[in-house]
Parts: sequence; C-alpha cells; structure tokens
Amino acid sequence: MTESQPGASKGAFADPEYAEAVVDLLGAIAYGELAAFERLADDAKLAPGLADKIALSSMAASEFSHLAQLEDRISELGADPYEAMEPFRQALDDFHAHTAPSDWYEGLVKAYVGDGLARDFYREIAAYLDPETRALITEALEDSQRSAFIVEKVRAGIAADHRLGGRLALWGRRLMGEALIQAQRIAAERDAMTALLAGGVDRPGLDLAAIGRMFTRLTERHSERMDELGLEA
Amino acid sequence: MTESQPGASKGAFADPEYAEAVVDLLGAIAYGELAAFERLADDAKLAPGLADKIALSSMAASEFSHLAQLEDRISELGADPYEAMEPFRQALDDFHAHTAPSDWYEGLVKAYVGDGLARDFYREIAAYLDPETRALITEALEDSQRSAFIVEKVRAGIAADHRLGGRLALWGRRLMGEALIQAQRIAAERDAMTALLAGGVDRPGLDLAAIGRMFTRLTERHSERMDELGLEA
Repeated sequence: MTESQPGASKGAFADPEYAEAVVDLLGAIAYGELAAFERLADDAKLAPGLADKIALSSMAASEFSHLAQLEDRISELGADPYEAMEPFRQALDDFHAHTAPSDWYEGLVKAYVGDGLARDFYREIAAYLDPETRALITEALEDSQRSAFIVEKVRAGIAADHRLGGRLALWGRRLMGEALIQAQRIAAERDAMTALLAGGVDRPGLDLAAIGRMFTRLTERHSERMDELGLEA
Repeated sequence: MTESQPGASKGAFADPEYAEAVVDLLGAIAYGELAAFERLADDAKLAPGLADKIALSSMAASEFSHLAQLEDRISELGADPYEAMEPFRQALDDFHAHTAPSDWYEGLVKAYVGDGLARDFYREIAAYLDPETRALITEALEDSQRSAFIVEKVRAGIAADHRLGGRLALWGRRLMGEALIQAQRIAAERDAMTALLAGGVDRPGLDLAAIGRMFTRLTERHSERMDELGLEA
C-alpha cells in the first residue's frame, strides 16, 4: 500500500467514527454540487451570447447528475442527506459569495479552477476510504469534458486583450486563497473529517508531512490548470 | 385523419416555408427550455429548505436533457441553432420578467402551470407536423414526473393557510394572461409559424374555428392543472 492508495477496507464501517466521517464527506460533496449548480447557473447570465450561455448552463445542469446517488448513499449509511449537507452550507456559500465573478471571463476561470480544485481535494481524501465510497466519489466528480470549451474561450480572450491575462491570473490566486480559507474552516469545525485524515487503529492516516505533500500536489495541479488557461499561477 | 392528428407527411420539407416554420418552432422550444432552466434555478433560491431547493433545482437541470437534440435537429435542417432561438428571446424573457415569483409558492405554481401550458401548446402545434419532428418535440417536452412534489407542497401550503389559496389562484390567472400576451406577440411577429398553423397546399391547417377549439382545449387543461393544485382557475 502506497501513500496515494492507502484506502480503508470495507470493514471500516464497523467504526462509527468512520461512518460519520464518510457521511460528512458525502454531505460536503453533495452540497458542493448544489452550490456549484446555483453559481454556474447564475454566472451563465454573464455570457456574451446564447452559445456560451448554453455551454455554461449545461455544465451547471450536469452538476446534478450524481446528486441523487450521493443522497441515496448517505441514507443507506443511516443519515439524513439534508442534515449531512447542512454543516457545509455556510462555508461553501461564503466561498461563492466571496468569489462572485465580475464578468464572463472570471466566471469561466472560476468554473474551471474551482471545479478542478474541489475534484482534486475530494479525490485525495477518497484515497483513504473503502473501495465502494471511493468509487462513488470518483464517479460523482467525473469530469464532464465540457470544460475544453473554457480553455478555448479564455485563451482566445487573452489573445485579444493581453491585460485580461494579468487580471485573470490575480483572480485565480484569489480563488485558491478563498478555497484554502474555507477548507481550513471546515477542517477546524468538522472533527469527524479531520479524524478521518488522521487515520485510526486499523486505518492508515496522514501525518503532518503527508498532509504537507497533499497540499503540494493540490497546488501543483492548480498551477497546471492555470497554465492550461494560459495564466500564470 | 382527424383534427387532433392531422400531421404533415415527411415530404413536407420540400416546402421551404415548412422547413422554416419547423426551425422556428424548434428554436422557440429550445430557448424556452433554456429560459425555464434559468428561472427555475433562480426560483429554487426561494426554497424554505435544502430538500425543496434540490427538488426544484433538479427540475431546472432536467430542462437541459433534450436541448442538445433540439440543437442537432435545427442544424440538420440547415439552420444555426442560436439564430433560431434568438427571435423568441425577448418574448420569453419578458414573460419571465413579468412573472417573477415573489415567494416560494408562487415559484412552485409557476413551474407547474407555466411548464404545463408550454407543453400543451407545443404539442397542439406538433400534431400538424411530420412524424419525425412530432416525435422529437413530444420527447423534448416529456413530463419528468417530478412535478408531483409541487402538487403536494402547494396543497399542504393552502391547508396550512387558506388565504394562500386565494392569492395563488390570482397568480395562476396572471400567468395564463402573460402567456397569452407573449404567444400573441410571437404569432404576430413570426410569419412562418403562423403560416404553419394555417396549413399549405398539401398540408392540412387550422381554420379560425379550429384555432378557437385549440384555445378552448388549452384553457381547459390549464383549469385542470389549477384544480390539481387545489386552486380555482
């Protein structure tokens, strides 16, 4: 077992703290999809034309495709899906309130960078979970491949106006900063999830050095995404 | 051939005016789905709780499920999907701007009544079209069955507060009135669609008496829906 695939066994659910942590995580992802839906649907209003509006709206709609599965799984684990989502509502709503795009391009970069960050973060955590939960999360976070259109649009925008590149690079850093602030807040408030990362008697966990490496990986992937958009990280 | 199923044959596309009218109609339905998505996503913000918000948001997301097919068909007919939608933008945006719900219940009634009206209207027109177009439209307007939750919520709301029933009954009439105003505006502006209803040399059409009967049917179905919600039409 390597650090990147240290997963818990299915038997881990015998530990009530493990089950609680999984419910927490699924609740966070589910509310994240709902919040992303709302914000993408809003941000689509900034689109300069119908084709662009439809492209971003359909990314919004696709956030819904896995929500029912997440809700079902939370119920199977004996918890109420809406109660499970509630603790993450404030942090995720605050993230979106503090990163409301002021124009179409900021909306595109946010959709690309924000989505990517969330996906990477949850996948990192999923590596420490039982195979079934891991598969559910991986599927829920599946990239819809629609985001190729974002790369194309942002690069075209920068090619047409070089100042845009500088502004969007700053914007990307602000998104990363806000995401870290809210992630830290969740970590401080949700003991079960933090305990999950720390491991248990029969589950491998992350020590501080491993958490540091995880953040390094997240930052590297963020830089790669910025690079794909033609932006300095 | 009866009045309710008088459909044109597939050969009707040899008539350029027929093809133009079909493009018009598909453009109207496609933009209608986009506009409905936007407004439902907005109206979901009025939900009193997470479960309700998710129910309405997922109705919004489902508006997207057939949009790609409509766009493809418009392209096959040699037209640009976004240009085809454009002429209906103002009327549909105006409809939504003039019927912005002031609370959660108005949003629910609008989703139920507005969706139903649009579906009935397009199905009436689809009866005059070639089988392939008719099938595409019928499928695009398929009821997602999710609306049962609306009936339940509205009835429960009225049971808890009888004044709500009076207010929502007025609201339902206003929705019908605005829908008729915008439909009339579209009919006045879009010659191809009006010509479609009037028929052609080798296509049966509607005379004034038949149009009158169609509106009677639409009004009757509207009354039935209001009745389902526990509201006087």
